Amino acid sequence: MKKEVKKVVLAYSGGLDTSIILKWLQDEYNCEVVTFTADIGQGEEVEPARKKAIALGVKPENIFIEDLREEFVKDYVFPMFRANAIYEGEYLLGTSIARPLISKRQAEIAKLTGADGVSHGATGKGNDQVRFELGYYALNPDLTIIAPWREWDLNSREKLLAYAERNGIDISKKPGKSPYSMDANLLHISYEGLVLENPANAPEKDMWRWTVDPKDAPNESEIITIGYEKGDPVSINGKKLSPAEILTELNRLGAKHGIGRLDIAENRYVGMKSRGCYETPGGTIMLKAHRAIESITLDRGAAHLKDELMPRYAELIYNGFWFSPERAMLQAAIDKSQEHVNGEVRVELYKGNVIILGRSSQNDNLFNEAYSTFEEDSVYDQKDADGFIKLNALRFIIASKNGRKF
Amino acid sequence: MKKEVKKVVLAYSGGLDTSIILKWLQDEYNCEVVTFTADIGQGEEVEPARKKAIALGVKPENIFIEDLREEFVKDYVFPMFRANAIYEGEYLLGTSIARPLISKRQAEIAKLTGADGVSHGATGKGNDQVRFELGYYALNPDLTIIAPWREWDLNSREKLLAYAERNGIDISKKPGKSPYSMDANLLHISYEGLVLENPANAPEKDMWRWTVDPKDAPNESEIITIGYEKGDPVSINGKKLSPAEILTELNRLGAKHGIGRLDIAENRYVGMKSRGCYETPGGTIMLKAHRAIESITLDRGAAHLKDELMPRYAELIYNGFWFSPERAMLQAAIDKSQEHVNGEVRVELYKGNVIILGRSSQNDNLFNEAYSTFEEDSVYDQKDADGFIKLNALRFIIASKNGRKF
Amino acid sequence: MKKEVKKVVLAYSGGLDTSIILKWLQDEYNCEVVTFTADIGQGEEVEPARKKAIALGVKPENIFIEDLREEFVKDYVFPMFRANAIYEGEYLLGTSIARPLISKRQAEIAKLTGADGVSHGATGKGNDQVRFELGYYALNPDLTIIAPWREWDLNSREKLLAYAERNGIDISKKPGKSPYSMDANLLHISYEGLVLENPANAPEKDMWRWTVDPKDAPNESEIITIGYEKGDPVSINGKKLSPAEILTELNRLGAKHGIGRLDIAENRYVGMKSRGCYETPGGTIMLKAHRAIESITLDRGAAHLKDELMPRYAELIYNGFWFSPERAMLQAAIDKSQEHVNGEVRVELYKGNVIILGRSSQNDNLFNEAYSTFEEDSVYDQKDADGFIKLNALRFIIASKNGRKF
Amino acid sequence: MKKEVKKVVLAYSGGLDTSIILKWLQDEYNCEVVTFTADIGQGEEVEPARKKAIALGVKPENIFIEDLREEFVKDYVFPMFRANAIYEGEYLLGTSIARPLISKRQAEIAKLTGADGVSHGATGKGNDQVRFELGYYALNPDLTIIAPWREWDLNSREKLLAYAERNGIDISKKPGKSPYSMDANLLHISYEGLVLENPANAPEKDMWRWTVDPKDAPNESEIITIGYEKGDPVSINGKKLSPAEILTELNRLGAKHGIGRLDIAENRYVGMKSRGCYETPGGTIMLKAHRAIESITLDRGAAHLKDELMPRYAELIYNGFWFSPERAMLQAAIDKSQEHVNGEVRVELYKGNVIILGRSSQNDNLFNEAYSTFEEDSVYDQKDADGFIKLNALRFIIASKNGRKF
Repeated sequence: MKKEVKKVVLAYSGGLDTSIILKWLQDEYNCEVVTFTADIGQGEEVEPARKKAIALGVKPENIFIEDLREEFVKDYVFPMFRANAIYEGEYLLGTSIARPLISKRQAEIAKLTGADGVSHGATGKGNDQVRFELGYYALNPDLTIIAPWREWDLNSREKLLAYAERNGIDISKKPGKSPYSMDANLLHISYEGLVLENPANAPEKDMWRWTVDPKDAPNESEIITIGYEKGDPVSINGKKLSPAEILTELNRLGAKHGIGRLDIAENRYVGMKSRGCYETPGGTIMLKAHRAIESITLDRGAAHLKDELMPRYAELIYNGFWFSPERAMLQAAIDKSQEHVNGEVRVELYKGNVIILGRSSQNDNLFNEAYSTFEEDSVYDQKDADGFIKLNALRFIIASKNGRKF
Repeated sequence: MKKEVKKVVLAYSGGLDTSIILKWLQDEYNCEVVTFTADIGQGEEVEPARKKAIALGVKPENIFIEDLREEFVKDYVFPMFRANAIYEGEYLLGTSIARPLISKRQAEIAKLTGADGVSHGATGKGNDQVRFELGYYALNPDLTIIAPWREWDLNSREKLLAYAERNGIDISKKPGKSPYSMDANLLHISYEGLVLENPANAPEKDMWRWTVDPKDAPNESEIITIGYEKGDPVSINGKKLSPAEILTELNRLGAKHGIGRLDIAENRYVGMKSRGCYETPGGTIMLKAHRAIESITLDRGAAHLKDELMPRYAELIYNGFWFSPERAMLQAAIDKSQEHVNGEVRVELYKGNVIILGRSSQNDNLFNEAYSTFEEDSVYDQKDADGFIKLNALRFIIASKNGRKF
Repeated sequence: MKKEVKKVVLAYSGGLDTSIILKWLQDEYNCEVVTFTADIGQGEEVEPARKKAIALGVKPENIFIEDLREEFVKDYVFPMFRANAIYEGEYLLGTSIARPLISKRQAEIAKLTGADGVSHGATGKGNDQVRFELGYYALNPDLTIIAPWREWDLNSREKLLAYAERNGIDISKKPGKSPYSMDANLLHISYEGLVLENPANAPEKDMWRWTVDPKDAPNESEIITIGYEKGDPVSINGKKLSPAEILTELNRLGAKHGIGRLDIAENRYVGMKSRGCYETPGGTIMLKAHRAIESITLDRGAAHLKDELMPRYAELIYNGFWFSPERAMLQAAIDKSQEHVNGEVRVELYKGNVIILGRSSQNDNLFNEAYSTFEEDSVYDQKDADGFIKLNALRFIIASKNGRKF
Repeated sequence: MKKEVKKVVLAYSGGLDTSIILKWLQDEYNCEVVTFTADIGQGEEVEPARKKAIALGVKPENIFIEDLREEFVKDYVFPMFRANAIYEGEYLLGTSIARPLISKRQAEIAKLTGADGVSHGATGKGNDQVRFELGYYALNPDLTIIAPWREWDLNSREKLLAYAERNGIDISKKPGKSPYSMDANLLHISYEGLVLENPANAPEKDMWRWTVDPKDAPNESEIITIGYEKGDPVSINGKKLSPAEILTELNRLGAKHGIGRLDIAENRYVGMKSRGCYETPGGTIMLKAHRAIESITLDRGAAHLKDELMPRYAELIYNGFWFSPERAMLQAAIDKSQEHVNGEVRVELYKGNVIILGRSSQNDNLFNEAYSTFEEDSVYDQKDADGFIKLNALRFIIASKNGRKF
């Protein structure tokens, strides 16, 4: 039994798939569609989506096209990078972190337009459906969620194209369009499908769209300085930049030097393993540089606690739980730790390598060479180590004297 | 007040510092010294230590020179790599993992020779003193521990050299000897001191002894296949090798391609930050390859639990708690997870990059392309995602309906 | 569309609800039903289930009635108590721990009888459906699972009774039968429903079936000694008993003294909060006594690691993941810790209180009064505390000297 | 070699031991002593300490006597109880939580009076020395710390008394003074020593000073209602009370009903096991009541994360790391979770038992009986459980189909 909806806010890219969904929603649900198209740095014009939406009968006042790049980086990417978040030891969560923002704006636009439904173009076997819908449910549980890929019978490429043709949707392939299933935003591009479906296969050389192959990267390395404030990058080579500007510039630099390619098999939240290739040029530099500035400004106890909390935090984001109370708790802990993460990191970029050349901090440096050398200093009395080791060992000593074997 | 000891087992490298310690022990404690020199792959001949020990008056039966490379890799390095252990997001624990084996053999040799003391050449401000001594205390708390660097007044290079000269110890510098404070074994080389003491400085180009600079690495990449059994590498390019042989060969390959350099500021267990540069060519390949074979053979729940336990496990090893009950508990959990981590990983090595080209497993592959593509399959019903997402969201739905904001 | 099954193994209690399910399966699925009735200590005769099954047309060879009490306690309850498992700080997991055993035997009986389906009587809003079905899926994913409560339209008490009457199933209420929704086994009894549905209400005094009200418990306390081997209780007052005998006797003692009542609101895995009252007389004693014997035999590092892992372990069992690789990993870690948990605990039982009077261990006592008193001893040099504290404080000292505020 | 100090702030109770320390500091260090005596609810007059200090030659302006009860409960006890903190499954951290406040005030008074040293009366084998000194080091690392018990040779009761007599310090035993080593504050009383030194012995009946024996508690139970705001108790039976008033009243009630006795062997941070008996009447009620109010107002994800973080948080407090960045991080996470922990809990007190009778919350109740009963409701569609379970099981299904055994 079909749900009843009157007005649906669709996350609309302007591409073929979401255009088909747009039409299908109008037909199947007999509802008004509000399109929401966001520029989150995917590298394609968003304005053309307006004409396409109008062509499909969407009312002008129902077309929302927004540039969310600054909000995306400032409120989603940067908080996540404060945590040094990595999923399964490898993945920088480029797709995962964009979904909450989209679902939040959809919920807001639904309120604005009096819509009673939301819809997205994520498939029924992936993580993105979960990320979108957990957001909708948390932000407005009264919205009816329509997930066309789980509902319709257009479950093959042929049926989709036929449906599009029947409905006058342009199916001509854009020249140069990738045959892979891709997702892109200011943090990354992902690739799935085709030859990647067998994890024994390497990706094709021409699959990658953003970064050059390390082998084709410049023979000359490039050195940059990234400035940090409270754990976030704020400048490059001394020039203050906005969050989106920082990431854009690091992407340009990373891409040029073949940095940030990743090829993994990962565990989806819905239960199966899948293969993904990712390009995260700027993010790869940011992760390394953030660790470097933390290495001289962050207390050990804070650093180790962050490392222990990180896998959970990354899992929450991957699984779509950005708006959960537990993510908010972890974020509060992480943000608390970043107050003194201020300073500069010098980084060399060379053929896929991100090499830290130096870290410094005007006011928050906890590194003092006098304490770490083997020479004597004013603070550390080497004899203190006797007692430190002895009392750390005491439980072993007692146990061993009681006959316990280690 | 000096402790009384009759016979002391010294971890003896044959170098200047431990030769001075040898002499100093004899003089200050008026005791017999047993020297223990192990080949753990540090890349220097160990046999010359015999002549030096004899020259310093050590009885032939008190000289122990052993090749521990296989034991080192099999019982220490490999178990640790099953955990994907990384300290503070970067360091592969090359020095840390060698210390327990040394202390264990010292305790065993003490028993064999009837010695009542043990001694080592680790300084009073570092981690190694802790690692050695926690081992001694756990394995035989009745041994008297002598840590000369914390006791004597030879607290400058000048005093040391003067003491050596007075006692006829050869102080001529070996040609080509590094001016840095180094530690080497089959897993890594570490560098400390000099220009590194300021974390704002980059290391000097000629500091590195093992790996080539990525810029000087071959322009041609090299592709190898590593075979895994129960989480441990067992073959390269189809050829079965012993643990030490595997690591030796991966080191050769990694070093050739500029792989495994690391430059960090880290938090010592004794409380201060210190700067270290590390070369871990084979280990860097192993970490990446192990994650890759796990990615298709390890269950998600096991993988995520491993990732959450890892920082604690790494911290325990870094801090010297190898012989602790909690490390044994974590190892039991980790080893339990590796039963099915069998298969092969294809890896490309190129100018500092370790690129995974493919992973496969004859019998333990959990990756099934039918399940991950967006097409229908026999196991996964896309409509199941409705309920999965809905019930995962239920707590948010209820909370939101009760007026709670996310 | 109905699934097709030929033969279904039903977890059959012999009560009204599962008798209705039995009939319904036969009618709706036109299938043969195999009944499985286990004695896991629920305190009701299981043999009468045979007659009832036969009356409903089940073939004699399709009736399985088994006494699983020893297996239940030995392989499920005891391993869980080694972990000191508590869900949400209160609940001893009495229902959760029984489900995996039932599902395992159902899967085994399906194999034995050539059945292609399994079914259970758990409702569609509870945890038990998850626990049963995760077991079925893990142990034999080819079995078709039928969950009548989620399928049929008998969604009210009236419809159920009407269906039963129509089909000649005895609906006469047993005298003394509780009006609450209950689950019982050798570890506990649970109560849900009726007045409990409002968490502001206290339970009715006559709800409890097992324990006496602490106010009605004997005025004389009772003292017992529990013997432990490798973390499991093995004797009471010096008398060796089997696992089920131990728990039976502790239940008798606890019930007599008003021990083990619990009244909580808990978070179900399917997403909502629910109210449950529980009686776990023996388990409550076991938890307290196990902690007591661990307190003198278990190393601190192991104890603290166990405490940190416990909430995850308890959550896994609560959520139904007994047969998961991550539970197996945690169990391996926990079991590793219990090798030396041997000794005796003296416990006083009095009106709801479990009071530890003493703990001792012949061979595994790590408590040595010489070390803890403020007098001097041979092992601990009080001056060692200087260095221990100083080096533990070093990071604060350095930070504070650098102007950081705590 | 003695350290040089001019003026030392001593944590001074006015009792025999700290009076001896006062004198000893004056004599040994030839320094001015500033006494700091705080009322943190230990149940003894603090004003008499003034006369004693003056008798020992302390200048009037160097005597600080302060009532810190409100600050103690508000800023230390309550934040800790938000976390449901328990050390090693049993101990409510009554001594541990008082130390940071004392050390903080000592550091502040040192600044106020220009003192360059601090001193305390904690022994050299206990935890308190660590807790005090980590505080001093963090708050002002330039203060010289004097720990007389680790320095002097007054290492027996006899020597102490002789020293006191020689110096005119009153050694007459107060009538009724306990022979046990005790610590008391508004949260608890602890007992150590004498018969307790053998963990096989039960404590003597007349050791306990605060609570009645459950056996001697009233035969009539007493029912109270505790109001909560943001996780802190704010009222009893509808009457708003200050933090210290709340705890005082709960102590009175708990003590009357025999609530909060604990007898454990615990692991000290300095390495050995020790035996402690504790009375925490009000705290025991608060822990249970806080869990109850959380049970209906706190999200599941937040609740479970809290439970996983708690053992670490408790360990930090036990070990003396209150002023550490990692405790601050955990506190930020915990406090974040408590925003909606508002409502009322009805509690029955009876002979050692704390029985929850009901919980309610005007605006923050997440419990909705419609969702938990087995009847249909508007939010939960039972068929959703199919998909929820199936996708949770998917990794097992795939693995099992691939031949993996669970």
